[in-house]
Amino acid sequence: MGKVMAGFTMSLDGFVADPNDDVSLVFKWYSAGDVDFPLPGTNRVFKISQASADYLTESWSTLGAIVTGRRDFDVSNAWGGKALMDLPTFIVTHHPPQEWLHEGSPFTFVTEGVEAAIERARAAAGEKNVGVGGTQIVQQALRAGLIDQIDIDLAPVLLGAGIRLFDNLPEPIELEIQRVVEGTGVTHISYRVVK
Amino acid sequence: MGKVMAGFTMSLDGFVADPNDDVSLVFKWYSAGDVDFPLPGTNRVFKISQASADYLTESWSTLGAIVTGRRDFDVSNAWGGKALMDLPTFIVTHHPPQEWLHEGSPFTFVTEGVEAAIERARAAAGEKNVGVGGTQIVQQALRAGLIDQIDIDLAPVLLGAGIRLFDNLPEPIELEIQRVVEGTGVTHISYRVVK
Repeated sequence: MGKVMAGFTMSLDGFVADPNDDVSLVFKWYSAGDVDFPLPGTNRVFKISQASADYLTESWSTLGAIVTGRRDFDVSNAWGGKALMDLPTFIVTHHPPQEWLHEGSPFTFVTEGVEAAIERARAAAGEKNVGVGGTQIVQQALRAGLIDQIDIDLAPVLLGAGIRLFDNLPEPIELEIQRVVEGTGVTHISYRVVK
Repeated sequence: MGKVMAGFTMSLDGFVADPNDDVSLVFKWYSAGDVDFPLPGTNRVFKISQASADYLTESWSTLGAIVTGRRDFDVSNAWGGKALMDLPTFIVTHHPPQEWLHEGSPFTFVTEGVEAAIERARAAAGEKNVGVGGTQIVQQALRAGLIDQIDIDLAPVLLGAGIRLFDNLPEPIELEIQRVVEGTGVTHISYRVVK
């Protein structure tokens, strides 16, 4: 069975976006390199360093399904109506949006909570990994001990305020550094969650 | 003239200590290696990796004076009555402790605030760098645009709560990665503050 991974770009002071959901400062490294990097499942192309491109390609190729939250879904405008990275995409929500419940919808809505969503994503992913997104979803999954790996793209900026990635964690969680990759304008660090 | 540097060990979620000032989880890397590393100005010896020892030796050798805060001074019990790293040590406080105001005291107390303390430390450091410690002092110095470099020893742990390093920063501050060093149980990242 695959692992459950959380992957985020985060500012040095712990934010994934500013108070207005603006990610331009934390995502600056997405245009800081000289290698074209097409974002899977979209027609967007980033410009990142070769080291970052190799790291992301390897990391993302391990994914077999995605779990994320309703906020992520809404803020991104349903990712233009396409499944994330062309993978089975599970969205945790109490109120599934009716317009996306039709036959052939790229999204599966899970109303029974994060654990159920991860379980369904695991089944869909088979031997591959499950990627978990959405800060609140990740926090719930961390509290429930469901995250095996945390991949952080550490952005060289202090935002001062915004949407905090690691929050509402009542107990310390020890990690183990698995890998550090120096990109241009970013430091990639992959951690294993010690259980 | 030297630079003004802030150096801290910080958890991945941004804390330098837990709510009870306990640093055992963030400082775990201080005993995770196999190289003896005597802490300058003390009789304590850490066990860290060769990479960390080389990095710290090089970084600390650039220092010519220290500025820190009253909380740091009190929590550490005046560092056993010795100047930090045997360097001129300036402590920002509104109420200098009378017992340390005698001739030959290893400490200089500055009542005119952080800027004044950094100015005096710069003068004492000459061509060398000034190290700034104490989270509130660093936050004040960052807001005043007085910090040139931030050296973070990123500890692989999520504390969930505690004393936050980067807090009370009203505006985003952009950084530039200068150097990344992989130690055992720690990732050292040195940033330049973009002004």
